[in-house]
Amino acid sequence: MAVADVSDHGGATRNVEDRTAALEAAIMDGPAKNVILIIGDGMGASEITIARNYAEGAAGTLPGLDPLLVTGQKTTYDLTPDGEVHYVPDSASTASAWATGTKTYTGALSIDVENNPQDTLLEIAKANGLKTGNVSTSEIQDATPAALFAHVNARRCYGPQATATTCPTFAKENGGLGSITEQLLDARADVVLGGGNATMGETAAAGPWAGQTLQEQAAERGYTYLTDSAELAGLSAADQSAPVLGLFTPGNFPVRYTGPIATEGGGNQPAASCTENPEWDPATSLGTMTGKAIELLDGDEGFFLQVESASIDKRDHSADACGQIGETIELDEAVQAALDFAKADGETLVVITADHSHTSQIVGSTPPGLSVNLLTADGQEMIVAYGTAPAGGSQQHTGASVPIAAYGPGGANVAGLTDDTDTFFTTMDALELNGDLASLSAAATLTLEPSSAAPGQTVTAASSELFGDRQVLATVGGEPVGQADVIDGVASFDVTAPETPGEYPVVLTGVQTGTELTASLVVSQSPTTPAPGDDGDDNEPDTGGVVDTDDAGGPGIGAAPQSAAGGPLAVTGAEVALAALLAALLLGSGGAAFWLRNQRLARVG
Amino acid sequence: MAVADVSDHGGATRNVEDRTAALEAAIMDGPAKNVILIIGDGMGASEITIARNYAEGAAGTLPGLDPLLVTGQKTTYDLTPDGEVHYVPDSASTASAWATGTKTYTGALSIDVENNPQDTLLEIAKANGLKTGNVSTSEIQDATPAALFAHVNARRCYGPQATATTCPTFAKENGGLGSITEQLLDARADVVLGGGNATMGETAAAGPWAGQTLQEQAAERGYTYLTDSAELAGLSAADQSAPVLGLFTPGNFPVRYTGPIATEGGGNQPAASCTENPEWDPATSLGTMTGKAIELLDGDEGFFLQVESASIDKRDHSADACGQIGETIELDEAVQAALDFAKADGETLVVITADHSHTSQIVGSTPPGLSVNLLTADGQEMIVAYGTAPAGGSQQHTGASVPIAAYGPGGANVAGLTDDTDTFFTTMDALELNGDLASLSAAATLTLEPSSAAPGQTVTAASSELFGDRQVLATVGGEPVGQADVIDGVASFDVTAPETPGEYPVVLTGVQTGTELTASLVVSQSPTTPAPGDDGDDNEPDTGGVVDTDDAGGPGIGAAPQSAAGGPLAVTGAEVALAALLAALLLGSGGAAFWLRNQRLARVG
Repeated sequence: MAVADVSDHGGATRNVEDRTAALEAAIMDGPAKNVILIIGDGMGASEITIARNYAEGAAGTLPGLDPLLVTGQKTTYDLTPDGEVHYVPDSASTASAWATGTKTYTGALSIDVENNPQDTLLEIAKANGLKTGNVSTSEIQDATPAALFAHVNARRCYGPQATATTCPTFAKENGGLGSITEQLLDARADVVLGGGNATMGETAAAGPWAGQTLQEQAAERGYTYLTDSAELAGLSAADQSAPVLGLFTPGNFPVRYTGPIATEGGGNQPAASCTENPEWDPATSLGTMTGKAIELLDGDEGFFLQVESASIDKRDHSADACGQIGETIELDEAVQAALDFAKADGETLVVITADHSHTSQIVGSTPPGLSVNLLTADGQEMIVAYGTAPAGGSQQHTGASVPIAAYGPGGANVAGLTDDTDTFFTTMDALELNGDLASLSAAATLTLEPSSAAPGQTVTAASSELFGDRQVLATVGGEPVGQADVIDGVASFDVTAPETPGEYPVVLTGVQTGTELTASLVVSQSPTTPAPGDDGDDNEPDTGGVVDTDDAGGPGIGAAPQSAAGGPLAVTGAEVALAALLAALLLGSGGAAFWLRNQRLARVG
Repeated sequence: MAVADVSDHGGATRNVEDRTAALEAAIMDGPAKNVILIIGDGMGASEITIARNYAEGAAGTLPGLDPLLVTGQKTTYDLTPDGEVHYVPDSASTASAWATGTKTYTGALSIDVENNPQDTLLEIAKANGLKTGNVSTSEIQDATPAALFAHVNARRCYGPQATATTCPTFAKENGGLGSITEQLLDARADVVLGGGNATMGETAAAGPWAGQTLQEQAAERGYTYLTDSAELAGLSAADQSAPVLGLFTPGNFPVRYTGPIATEGGGNQPAASCTENPEWDPATSLGTMTGKAIELLDGDEGFFLQVESASIDKRDHSADACGQIGETIELDEAVQAALDFAKADGETLVVITADHSHTSQIVGSTPPGLSVNLLTADGQEMIVAYGTAPAGGSQQHTGASVPIAAYGPGGANVAGLTDDTDTFFTTMDALELNGDLASLSAAATLTLEPSSAAPGQTVTAASSELFGDRQVLATVGGEPVGQADVIDGVASFDVTAPETPGEYPVVLTGVQTGTELTASLVVSQSPTTPAPGDDGDDNEPDTGGVVDTDDAGGPGIGAAPQSAAGGPLAVTGAEVALAALLAALLLGSGGAAFWLRNQRLARVG
């Protein structure tokens, strides 16, 4: 915009006409089919203004963020471990708040202040049959993306190694849910894109894949795992049978812009321009990843997708104005990609907000702390100050409320003043999600095929509609025979009938809800009706999302006839509290021998 | 709110139900009958959060601000005197932007970057027949209130003394519009409440009241001038005949809360509580003044009222967290008063915003700059940091966008991202104001009563419908005879017919629009019809809002018969460019002899 314009009467206005009709039109009744939640980490009003001034000029428009009409402010305070109010939160507690609707303490991920895991939007959306995605420019284990899939008391427990020392009660070897990356694999979102592949080289200390790297585990569990950004564009499918896990850098993504770091007296230096970082990868720009994730998720099921521009915060911590500006532009491009889809789709709610405010401020003269002088799109000098930590220290988060905006059905729930935890319910309500995961497994059934078998015969124990669970454990005659991922509500085990005739209870237990499914396997020397189509090949291709077993080396399970019909037995699941049993089973060192592995190696590249 | 609540699942949410219907209901079509614009000076999101945390707790609700649903962000950049973009504005340039729709430079009041005066919302509302009000906790001459009535290049030109040295081209003695306080009296809002009565003791250096104090001038021009806050409650009327000018303190109001000033390392001190300042006057709390102003302004005409909580900014400058908190509470009480009226009235738009962001930040640990530790309503410690100036210096304004919210007809225009200048048009459009002041004087008429007079006879030259003007100048036979305030479109002069028979042009010129009204006075020894009811008493009570003259000592004006009928002559006004003439007339040293004075001393107390 020419400077002459903004000095004219009316030359600086942003409203081109009365906004009443436009705002009315922007309020769309729910429900929504899809929700895209976009987070600018550390992106308060100051960070947005700094980026606008630099990139577009003070009178300019950030094309993604600025046209949104349904806007508000959001409180971001968190709690102490004792449950007291705490005014300056971190990305873990804030992300947990919107991921679960429950506030927690700094550093904690999706647990309450008593360390009880809280179900997340991603987990709930998945349990309700939606597709799910999680995209970030950070390590995928970093707090904001991790809050969607991990429940742990220390955000740095990325892999088994850190978990063993930093948050041992959550370690697999201690009966816990495992490191953040192991919980990422258990969560099994359809699309996960970000950084952090270094942790994938760590080795599981316990559990079914003890002794294997997390990358190997991902492959065995059917993930489409990729690290080469050149492969992203070619992806055409992502679902529960072959979820996409693209981790393109060892740690966080390189930032888009580099420039002078703020220093004492830096505001007095000649105004500098930012430079595009040659290490930045356009193939994994946040806008590109967002568009790709939407493409992979869009379908009849509906989806929940979270997208984070992570390093606004990280560069603000480092008093790096150019860094945070580039990452705010990344955020804005993600917003554009989301809005492009949402406007065409008409059934998608897009919510954009930050997790907390941050240090950077635009000032008129060089302050006593750190500062830097940038040359903006207006051709003018802008001094950015960082005053909450000394040179070389980490600039602090701040406690001010942050902007929030929305587009699409249900978006009115961000208007006015809300809290982080409201964002959880805004999403839940827009998608009409049922947050009671146990109820989502309540209609589950267990089928034995055949239900009467000869000793040594292969029997398939198949659960279905176990939607509230992501993993299931099985026992036959009280003996554990392994764990399987629940794929679209389905998990099945092929087991060998015991050699000793008799009647054996087969029990499948949903790990997340404790739903227990029980059927009776009758083993006799001459079962009336062999199961049709059972060829005993447990390595055959699996077309139905059912987890096969490649391990028939379970306890010596015999077989006996059960009934003349020999047809499937269906048992409706019931919620049972099995925490202690599950913890014991998850210990895993013994269980590994019985672990049911998915043989589909769908790895790309 | 009990801390136990906020740690529960859903315990910290602010939405009690889906907001879609509530937001839809909050969008009201214009026009509005009344607009109340409430400014928190320096009240960015951080200042609001600090006040909420302290006074209500982090999960609490500021009763005025927080329930508003139609909200947005507003850009606040200003310009350099050269018209270039400038990222950190002051209260003068920002207030000018919303007062006039034209951006200007730091320190300038309602002039453009070329120093051309720009009509303000208050002036335009008044010209459109609305009542007007201006309320602040600061000196009424301070930037935010002054932008509504003053046009000057230096905001500190409060009175004639400062103006003579600081902004001499605007001084009355140099043909300018005069000091801020003199322009306050010329603007003649119906209700003005605030501080700053010290300047009223200054003496006018030029103009009609040269040699008199501004307080004397106010009295002579019909103001109800009061300085005792105890008299505020008893006021029952304020209009153009007797506008209320209540200036209750010499300077800014004492603030509501006092407490420890931030110091280096202050965050490490034991948490302190704020104390109510014994010098604070509840009789002039901002909520009280707002309620009173509304009561005085409410009527058939509709009104425009601006209310400012000024010292959020001032205490932020001084690193005084308790000070800024108390003033934010003042702001919130004003919002409550305005909303109480607006909700009952149904035709009132209330807009609440700030002029610019400021320094204060909530941090998690003691920063290297100044900080203070406060004990909040949560019973927790909150560290507030001030890092943009050294100890003893003035903490800086910052350049981040600020929150804006609205209630009532036309409020949708604050949604999303707007600019300061949009607030001007939002108000203009809501009130359907005609900003072309000349057109508002275009139907004006001039009546001579009688139009034919004997030498020495008193003739009344009365204009009406001169709505676009606030003052009018008169000449008879080319000789200036004085200036009068336009009251509800009416200004009149009683003049003595010249002794020499002949035909004399009588010209009334609107000072603001240049509208020129001309009539012909015929002076003869035996006019046919003396004016009925003209008793020649120019000190009679004025019941019609017409300005009388107490000065018949004009040029020797004779009289001659004009017509047999001798009735009034009506001339429709036409816009004429008279800047040079007006400037000369306003020089005033000579004009003072002919000045028309209002004899109604309506002073209270």
